[in-house]
Amino acid sequence: MKNIKLTIEYDGTNYCGWQRQLNGISVEETLEKVIIDLFKDNIKIIGCSRTDSGVHARGQVVTFKIETKIPTQKIPRAINARLPKDIVVVNAEEVSMDFHPRYSAISKEYSYGIFNRSIPPALMKGFYWHVGYELNVDNMRKAASYFIGEHDFSAFKSQGGSTTTSIREIYSLDIIKDGDYLTIRIKGNGFLYNMVRIIVGTLIEVGRGKIPYDSIEHIIESKDRRLAGVTAKAHGLCLEKVYY
Amino acid sequence: MKNIKLTIEYDGTNYCGWQRQLNGISVEETLEKVIIDLFKDNIKIIGCSRTDSGVHARGQVVTFKIETKIPTQKIPRAINARLPKDIVVVNAEEVSMDFHPRYSAISKEYSYGIFNRSIPPALMKGFYWHVGYELNVDNMRKAASYFIGEHDFSAFKSQGGSTTTSIREIYSLDIIKDGDYLTIRIKGNGFLYNMVRIIVGTLIEVGRGKIPYDSIEHIIESKDRRLAGVTAKAHGLCLEKVYY
Repeated sequence: MKNIKLTIEYDGTNYCGWQRQLNGISVEETLEKVIIDLFKDNIKIIGCSRTDSGVHARGQVVTFKIETKIPTQKIPRAINARLPKDIVVVNAEEVSMDFHPRYSAISKEYSYGIFNRSIPPALMKGFYWHVGYELNVDNMRKAASYFIGEHDFSAFKSQGGSTTTSIREIYSLDIIKDGDYLTIRIKGNGFLYNMVRIIVGTLIEVGRGKIPYDSIEHIIESKDRRLAGVTAKAHGLCLEKVYY
Repeated sequence: MKNIKLTIEYDGTNYCGWQRQLNGISVEETLEKVIIDLFKDNIKIIGCSRTDSGVHARGQVVTFKIETKIPTQKIPRAINARLPKDIVVVNAEEVSMDFHPRYSAISKEYSYGIFNRSIPPALMKGFYWHVGYELNVDNMRKAASYFIGEHDFSAFKSQGGSTTTSIREIYSLDIIKDGDYLTIRIKGNGFLYNMVRIIVGTLIEVGRGKIPYDSIEHIIESKDRRLAGVTAKAHGLCLEKVYY
């Protein structure tokens, strides 16, 4: 028996998210069907991150256990040949039997794309959230610095997550500007439900002057979701990498 | 009578190119229909660049002449409200009556996106050409330097263009690498039919070792299309800006 770890990239536009739902097709079931079809075995796959509908991934991690003679390095092409083109297996490797994509993870990195111009973009619409207000990026960077470190992020989570603690550590939060495109990159030891999107929404409200950059510390301390900003749209978010 | 200059952005994926064709819907006719509908007048628009099917634009330039009381700065939103979301008017300004989008242009800038990994991308597929071979970017940059300056680019044009001379000047040709993404930016006083795509195709063959970087000078001098590389796919190309 082997424990196979796959790194998966997907364009989340046409899926109801990672996890099975009644109202649409999930990435999980699309991938699982192909793996079952390939190995002719009743396999159950385990994903690392339950990305929401519309969220993308470059580094989703999946494992499944299988008795097979197919060499591990040949698995990506075999699966990719059967997958729709908006899901791709980037890498396959054999890991120890006790490796778990969720519990073994030590940190995660996400990116969030913003297109900042009064007029909406015609290009790459599915990967950047259109923000029409003028944004002060310097103030957004100042605000970003307050998120770094270990905090109780209760003010930055949506209802519905199932975790015992709201304490997380953020290692880095960078804002890269390239013309009208802003990319926010955030790395931490874990994220609460919608935490990245609420941090991004808050940074945007700082950028447009609705929230002062130096009030972030107070918002974190308040543990009050109502003081933080809006939840940024799903389609700007991408799970970049999971570290083990 | 006013001469209105529009700057247009479009995702070329679902169009047969800028110019009217029998086999599909063009950006030109889509935009012209909306302008006619808006101004209730039989307007003929003139575009700067006849981009091919699948090619994108951030800075296509269009003019049309009109007798109207609508303030020029209100024109973008009025047109955008009627356009499909993959075409957007970014800017409108009034120019002199003798301004012509094609003949008044003094230089143009294009970008070309390459996704360089053995496994195809799941994300932003419509904007990057997938090149699976390993590319030596240093050699591509060395090759790029030979294109700079004024040359007869007969070896880098496809049949079908209608120009009197094949002499063009390239001002800059930069290759930016960001992980698996390569962006080639090229600026010149003008480009022959498919010239950017053939230069990109040639640079890729240099990158994979099929064409030595120091043979570019010889290929240019030969004026022989067969010595240059393949024509890179349309969907990586984007008309970034026209300078007047």
